[in-house]
Amino acid sequence: MLPHTVREALRKYKTGEISEEELAGLLRDLPFEDLGFARVDHHRALRHGFPEVIFGHRKSAEQVLSIARSLLARQPNLLVTRCEPAAYQALRLEYPETRYYEASRAATLIREKQQLGHGKIGVYSAGTADIPVAEEAIVTAETMGNEVTSAFDVGVAGLHRILHEKGTLQECSVVVVVAGMEGALPSVVGGLVGVPVIAVPTSVGYGASFGGLAALLGMLNSCASNVAVVNIDNGFGAGYIAALINRRGNPESR
Amino acid sequence: MLPHTVREALRKYKTGEISEEELAGLLRDLPFEDLGFARVDHHRALRHGFPEVIFGHRKSAEQVLSIARSLLARQPNLLVTRCEPAAYQALRLEYPETRYYEASRAATLIREKQQLGHGKIGVYSAGTADIPVAEEAIVTAETMGNEVTSAFDVGVAGLHRILHEKGTLQECSVVVVVAGMEGALPSVVGGLVGVPVIAVPTSVGYGASFGGLAALLGMLNSCASNVAVVNIDNGFGAGYIAALINRRGNPESR
Amino acid sequence: MLPHTVREALRKYKTGEISEEELAGLLRDLPFEDLGFARVDHHRALRHGFPEVIFGHRKSAEQVLSIARSLLARQPNLLVTRCEPAAYQALRLEYPETRYYEASRAATLIREKQQLGHGKIGVYSAGTADIPVAEEAIVTAETMGNEVTSAFDVGVAGLHRILHEKGTLQECSVVVVVAGMEGALPSVVGGLVGVPVIAVPTSVGYGASFGGLAALLGMLNSCASNVAVVNIDNGFGAGYIAALINRRGNPESR
Amino acid sequence: MLPHTVREALRKYKTGEISEEELAGLLRDLPFEDLGFARVDHHRALRHGFPEVIFGHRKSAEQVLSIARSLLARQPNLLVTRCEPAAYQALRLEYPETRYYEASRAATLIREKQQLGHGKIGVYSAGTADIPVAEEAIVTAETMGNEVTSAFDVGVAGLHRILHEKGTLQECSVVVVVAGMEGALPSVVGGLVGVPVIAVPTSVGYGASFGGLAALLGMLNSCASNVAVVNIDNGFGAGYIAALINRRGNPESR
Amino acid sequence: MLPHTVREALRKYKTGEISEEELAGLLRDLPFEDLGFARVDHHRALRHGFPEVIFGHRKSAEQVLSIARSLLARQPNLLVTRCEPAAYQALRLEYPETRYYEASRAATLIREKQQLGHGKIGVYSAGTADIPVAEEAIVTAETMGNEVTSAFDVGVAGLHRILHEKGTLQECSVVVVVAGMEGALPSVVGGLVGVPVIAVPTSVGYGASFGGLAALLGMLNSCASNVAVVNIDNGFGAGYIAALINRRGNPESR
Amino acid sequence: MLPHTVREALRKYKTGEISEEELAGLLRDLPFEDLGFARVDHHRALRHGFPEVIFGHRKSAEQVLSIARSLLARQPNLLVTRCEPAAYQALRLEYPETRYYEASRAATLIREKQQLGHGKIGVYSAGTADIPVAEEAIVTAETMGNEVTSAFDVGVAGLHRILHEKGTLQECSVVVVVAGMEGALPSVVGGLVGVPVIAVPTSVGYGASFGGLAALLGMLNSCASNVAVVNIDNGFGAGYIAALINRRGNPESR
Amino acid sequence: MLPHTVREALRKYKTGEISEEELAGLLRDLPFEDLGFARVDHHRALRHGFPEVIFGHRKSAEQVLSIARSLLARQPNLLVTRCEPAAYQALRLEYPETRYYEASRAATLIREKQQLGHGKIGVYSAGTADIPVAEEAIVTAETMGNEVTSAFDVGVAGLHRILHEKGTLQECSVVVVVAGMEGALPSVVGGLVGVPVIAVPTSVGYGASFGGLAALLGMLNSCASNVAVVNIDNGFGAGYIAALINRRGNPESR
Amino acid sequence: MLPHTVREALRKYKTGEISEEELAGLLRDLPFEDLGFARVDHHRALRHGFPEVIFGHRKSAEQVLSIARSLLARQPNLLVTRCEPAAYQALRLEYPETRYYEASRAATLIREKQQLGHGKIGVYSAGTADIPVAEEAIVTAETMGNEVTSAFDVGVAGLHRILHEKGTLQECSVVVVVAGMEGALPSVVGGLVGVPVIAVPTSVGYGASFGGLAALLGMLNSCASNVAVVNIDNGFGAGYIAALINRRGNPESR
Repeated sequence: MLPHTVREALRKYKTGEISEEELAGLLRDLPFEDLGFARVDHHRALRHGFPEVIFGHRKSAEQVLSIARSLLARQPNLLVTRCEPAAYQALRLEYPETRYYEASRAATLIREKQQLGHGKIGVYSAGTADIPVAEEAIVTAETMGNEVTSAFDVGVAGLHRILHEKGTLQECSVVVVVAGMEGALPSVVGGLVGVPVIAVPTSVGYGASFGGLAALLGMLNSCASNVAVVNIDNGFGAGYIAALINRRGNPESR
Repeated sequence: MLPHTVREALRKYKTGEISEEELAGLLRDLPFEDLGFARVDHHRALRHGFPEVIFGHRKSAEQVLSIARSLLARQPNLLVTRCEPAAYQALRLEYPETRYYEASRAATLIREKQQLGHGKIGVYSAGTADIPVAEEAIVTAETMGNEVTSAFDVGVAGLHRILHEKGTLQECSVVVVVAGMEGALPSVVGGLVGVPVIAVPTSVGYGASFGGLAALLGMLNSCASNVAVVNIDNGFGAGYIAALINRRGNPESR
Repeated sequence: MLPHTVREALRKYKTGEISEEELAGLLRDLPFEDLGFARVDHHRALRHGFPEVIFGHRKSAEQVLSIARSLLARQPNLLVTRCEPAAYQALRLEYPETRYYEASRAATLIREKQQLGHGKIGVYSAGTADIPVAEEAIVTAETMGNEVTSAFDVGVAGLHRILHEKGTLQECSVVVVVAGMEGALPSVVGGLVGVPVIAVPTSVGYGASFGGLAALLGMLNSCASNVAVVNIDNGFGAGYIAALINRRGNPESR
Repeated sequence: MLPHTVREALRKYKTGEISEEELAGLLRDLPFEDLGFARVDHHRALRHGFPEVIFGHRKSAEQVLSIARSLLARQPNLLVTRCEPAAYQALRLEYPETRYYEASRAATLIREKQQLGHGKIGVYSAGTADIPVAEEAIVTAETMGNEVTSAFDVGVAGLHRILHEKGTLQECSVVVVVAGMEGALPSVVGGLVGVPVIAVPTSVGYGASFGGLAALLGMLNSCASNVAVVNIDNGFGAGYIAALINRRGNPESR
Repeated sequence: MLPHTVREALRKYKTGEISEEELAGLLRDLPFEDLGFARVDHHRALRHGFPEVIFGHRKSAEQVLSIARSLLARQPNLLVTRCEPAAYQALRLEYPETRYYEASRAATLIREKQQLGHGKIGVYSAGTADIPVAEEAIVTAETMGNEVTSAFDVGVAGLHRILHEKGTLQECSVVVVVAGMEGALPSVVGGLVGVPVIAVPTSVGYGASFGGLAALLGMLNSCASNVAVVNIDNGFGAGYIAALINRRGNPESR
Repeated sequence: MLPHTVREALRKYKTGEISEEELAGLLRDLPFEDLGFARVDHHRALRHGFPEVIFGHRKSAEQVLSIARSLLARQPNLLVTRCEPAAYQALRLEYPETRYYEASRAATLIREKQQLGHGKIGVYSAGTADIPVAEEAIVTAETMGNEVTSAFDVGVAGLHRILHEKGTLQECSVVVVVAGMEGALPSVVGGLVGVPVIAVPTSVGYGASFGGLAALLGMLNSCASNVAVVNIDNGFGAGYIAALINRRGNPESR
Repeated sequence: MLPHTVREALRKYKTGEISEEELAGLLRDLPFEDLGFARVDHHRALRHGFPEVIFGHRKSAEQVLSIARSLLARQPNLLVTRCEPAAYQALRLEYPETRYYEASRAATLIREKQQLGHGKIGVYSAGTADIPVAEEAIVTAETMGNEVTSAFDVGVAGLHRILHEKGTLQECSVVVVVAGMEGALPSVVGGLVGVPVIAVPTSVGYGASFGGLAALLGMLNSCASNVAVVNIDNGFGAGYIAALINRRGNPESR
Repeated sequence: MLPHTVREALRKYKTGEISEEELAGLLRDLPFEDLGFARVDHHRALRHGFPEVIFGHRKSAEQVLSIARSLLARQPNLLVTRCEPAAYQALRLEYPETRYYEASRAATLIREKQQLGHGKIGVYSAGTADIPVAEEAIVTAETMGNEVTSAFDVGVAGLHRILHEKGTLQECSVVVVVAGMEGALPSVVGGLVGVPVIAVPTSVGYGASFGGLAALLGMLNSCASNVAVVNIDNGFGAGYIAALINRRGNPESR
């Protein structure tokens, strides 16, 4: 159907309340959202069904708190990524149930536990130094209403570690793999599972890792066909895409 | 459950038909897949339910034909990517229903149409020069049993073109976006849909595109949260991952 | 015409007040600008009609103040880019009407408002983190005597935002587009307008943005034909070039 | 004014020939161009007033000819860039006045000479090997209705050459500077003129020029404030942007 | 001790047969080899005990044959790497027992089988496209007198393949691992064995493999501590170093 | 032979002590180590015979101490690389014989001197600024039970310095060469010795050394055939691989 | 003193032969060369005393011949670099004494042997594959009137080779060192001599030499203080600069 | 002639004061410099006639002072580059005539003014931010006994500035040109003079200057044939090489 404002204008035009020229002017002046096109944002909120997220980097505690208040008026839960400790303190004062994840510096406020995904999301990291990025993926996926299973320090130089996780891995409907240095873990995991693998290169490494470039290139060149890659250290993006994929299995979201 | 061959061997051993040594020998000689660990491959075939694919690059017509025969003994359909015309001719002589896609140099043999995915996969390309890569993604997704909707030449410098596709786009359960040059289309599409976007940079471009590096970096740095990236010109990988995601919606495959 | 000082010398020589040798000496001692060749600098001042600019980076408060005094003896207005707060304090003490822009760290002193451009310059930024660079472009363009219209946070992942600006955009005679991350906004804007677009990549980004390289390459490879690019974070350069273009429409400046 | 098709529909609705629902359906089904939003393309044609251009790269002679016919039905003149000799032959058979520029492989068909720009566009190249790119810029600017002045082989290692052009340079309203190797000429020209300089790096060079990267970086880092850069070897883009700038001075185009 | 020639000169000087000046002249004129320094080359031949190798790249058949003759006068066996077919033909005419390896384009002439190493050298490659490089390593190691065990196509995306080789792998005294694309195999092998792993990145790959750079960086950043790397596609170097390591176990060579 | 646990289970199954289902369960539940596959870790400890190493980077003093206690329960000696002074203080309080190497920030605790290698390991560095990396290699090699000989500041621009070491060099069974800047020393050393050379590029350098990239590329392109390379500044890795090679000569370790 | 033409004009002005306006016009119209500024070119010819050189790359035989004729009217000798065989044939037909150097594709015509330099120029190359570049340097230096001493294949992995040249090396007044791969030779030579070393990286190399980048970076980071670098494969530039340096010793040229 | 210590030993041997064995021992124990081969160092000192230089980077005040004392026992003058203020203070306490250059952090102690060069060395910098590097070149050249002429802030965007220096420039026997950003000044200077130009890229720049890479590439690709390049910010190296070239003109040094 045409949006209400348009219908109203058309009716006035039909009844002669406004001339064709006035109608033309009205149509031209309408915010384009009303023309059916760019209702994108609202559609997005509806479609995603995910809480909106605050990217806390370079935002003051006041800014974070203020955006949080506004979002919490519309949605039950909240995720703040790259949240400075001061912003977390400010949030906690007002919302005592806020929880902070130190490694990833993520803050969450879960007032209503949701089950949006269908199946488990696996999050695996190659080394202990990759944990902050993995944690960001986990917190993101959980806040988006998913069950997450994870293991850290399962890098390929000690193969038994990831093989030990094979059973659990193969129960996941999508797997996030976080690795720095040579970034080889996604290829190995990609070969062990039959579901999409979202690979996150990290900036963990020394010398010729060049800030994660080595891991990034390794993942892009994976010989496993089921590996897609996000930006270096982008745990949030990986968790978010995994949540989108996992929701596909939810009969209600299709 | 243990695989049949193992169960059979155990029973013979129990009934004394074979000695422990013979059992050990049998177990050792069995393809290691049967020993419970590396059943990976068969599991993969089962889990994926996808036909295996021949990567035709640098393979002779004879090699392609020989592998094709072997695969077609086990699976109804076949996909050969980067298939040289000579290899296609050899295939068609023996399997007249083989079809060739010239732009992407893909060959397919569909003897049994399968519906493995649930929902539509969208494949969009920014320019006409990106069509070969987009076609590879389409052929891959279709061969994996998916319905595909697509549009080419919908790059961001003429925004009305992709906007014209908005309705169709928003019906997709996963979208593959193929772009060279500045690689901006995935960000735009990512903002228009609420499903995963698999971005494929192409080597299409001039000067400072550096063989697709510009598009690759652009896609990795997308400001849309639902974009993951595969290797430059890797239409096959994108189509494959999209098929894996799309199958998630299939109640039978979960 | 020959410059005044040269004419004066020639007349004195003609009247015998000075000998040829003295004339030669005078000509040699004149600032070389006067010899017809390198009048560049003065010509530039005349031609540009723009106030000279102090690049404040690594300059002490004293240095900035001293150069400012010297320039303000010759020109009504002043722009200091990359101006440290201390330098601003020093300027304000002496010139209380000095104004400071914290995001871009620009200081301006406008004693005489000029209208040098003809038409509006648009300045648009993709994200809020790009605002410092956009502000530098705005302050530069305004100090050069232009009307500026601007909007921030109109990145391509929420397309309705830039589309909402379409009307305003299309009234501009030149548009500066500032973007980090994937740098896609200039291509989109380039497709929406029929005037030159000056693209400014910013160092805003994470991981594989490599300090703005991703945005820079994206902009250089733009599929829109009306996009030219300046250096990473170079808001000043973009504002300056936009001012030069906008003055083209001024009948008096042609 | 509203487009004709919309007006027609509105009138039928007013007279009761169609119902509101039918009107809604009609409006929804209309090509979006007609809804006032994406009239972009037509607006662009009108605003630019420039003939549309065929990018001939990888297009067959038939394709070029076919597109040419379609464009020439709507516009008097035609530019084909990167036009293969065969495509030119095909064009000339049908349009004998077609002209071919061998160095840049551009073909033009000027049936009606237009004066769209106001002022001269200068095109200067550093070396003779840069001529193909410079010629592409010249042909583009001329086809867009501009007067062009040019000089080749005026690189900075023989400074008198570009200084010799100073007078002519300073009459230009915008200057395109084409250079490979170290790409220093735009900085020098930028210092000599008070108008925008569009710099085009070329892939001309040896060893560490890395396909034009050295020239590109040099130009982006120019110490002259009036230099903006386009992609390597992109003579067309530079000529096009210069034409957009030059039209600014045309009272009728403002 | 002082070298003989020096002692001789000193004695003649002492007995007055030569003057101090003559002694000085003699010492100065002596080939430096005689001064104990640069007998390097001969030492090297003795120490290595390896046949000298001809690098056939860009050498004509005549050049290869001529060098071969000269070397075969001093050593029983010969290795020519990157040997063009024509050079091989020339060799075989004169030395019918010459053998050619097509994949790696290596030619060998083994007239006297030597056992210089102690223990087995393993050579493993990730994909079938890496075989030419792996073969070069094998041929090199064998020609240097070593027993070699090898397997191809054991890349990490099908982990069971390399695991199947675990027993054999763990019998090796040094392992050469050849891989293109993401170059992950050396890390996995490095974790499975307790001996040095020499990793060879290959230029096999697509898109962002950038001619082997991705594999090279992956290997340099290996999380396994026992991995060292040689140049891209340098199968010869890897085989040579492996031979040097393997000889360490030979009691006669220590 | 089948592993003992498997044989035991089979026998119980044969005697009816367990059912086929129970056998299947047992086989599935066995830690995979027991299936002969991933006993890797224990094998590795046994095979290597090397003390395990703590990588101290980003680990707190408490973490280092806690891991150290655990390791020292199983092994006599300990190496902590990249050990912060605070962690060293904590170690020394509990283990007073802990020794600290300030340049490389390595800490060692040698309670039982071991002779695991056979022959000398040489460690040479080009400049004094490379000493921290060289020291890490030395400490690693010594802790792994090797005799080490070393010289610093023997870079190639003063060739007599490395030539002075020729005698000592040629007694080594493996040589680690550490160099920043142009990284040329490994090529020179590689030509002087007939044993493997492990090259370590360092991040020492200025300007175009790009954090060790120049040295890394130089070493990878070495014209000496016996040079393999580890990551930038990876003294530990070089010392570790050298120890593995040197143990080859130990009759007991073969 | 003022240039003659200016003095003449001034006198005419004084005597009333020309008006001030005419004087202004004269001064403005004078070729700037006459104003003392840009007589550069002529000065250069005089100062250098070197024959001008034709860069033959991409020039047709006719073009080369035509430029050659023009130059030979003014100078006795000629150098054509990167001269195609056809251009050489054309030259030889007209100037039978033309000589061609196949490796470097240089052609020379020496009609009058000149001795412009004072002292010897050394040209040394690391490998035989570097000879074409070395030859270009030699031919250039010789054509510029210098005595050249040279040796090829004296790379650092066989140190005795360059040491064998030490005596000759130390007689040179400037040394050109040509090397590909790791580019280490200039550092070694720089340490052996007390004169300037001009280093020429070549594109000779494999894999990670990246077209000469490795050698280039190595040379720029040389630990020898007397090394300066020219572009990859730029033998001409090195020979030219060496000739400029060598002429410094010529009492007549100072 | 043989060095004194050797002659002395030979005489003692001849007179029987020492036996041949003792002579051998003495010769072996002599610093190898004395054995005729590696007299390099002393030769270098003699040949160069330049004071040795302390590279102060990362050296403590005590270290610098200690090395200074040792050098000043052998040479009249001293240069310390990259000298920390504390080290300068230590030097000045002991050697009050020490002078410090703050911009370049160089310290000099000139006890005996030397005239080693013949002719003037020019040092020119493009911008004021390049002054520290230019100053290092100047101080180096002066300490090596040369007359230096210099000008700063003569970059190419204000061409009259360098042209103003033309007269002075053309009196130099070698010119050092220091520039950051686009690095264009050496090409311009190279065209103005007929002597060698040593180009020094600096890390001065923003955004895509990438730490001096843009300037470095620009200089390597200079279209002037007389430009050679040293490492980024390497003012010392440029001054040193210029001193070596300038000494060529000194009749006594030839």
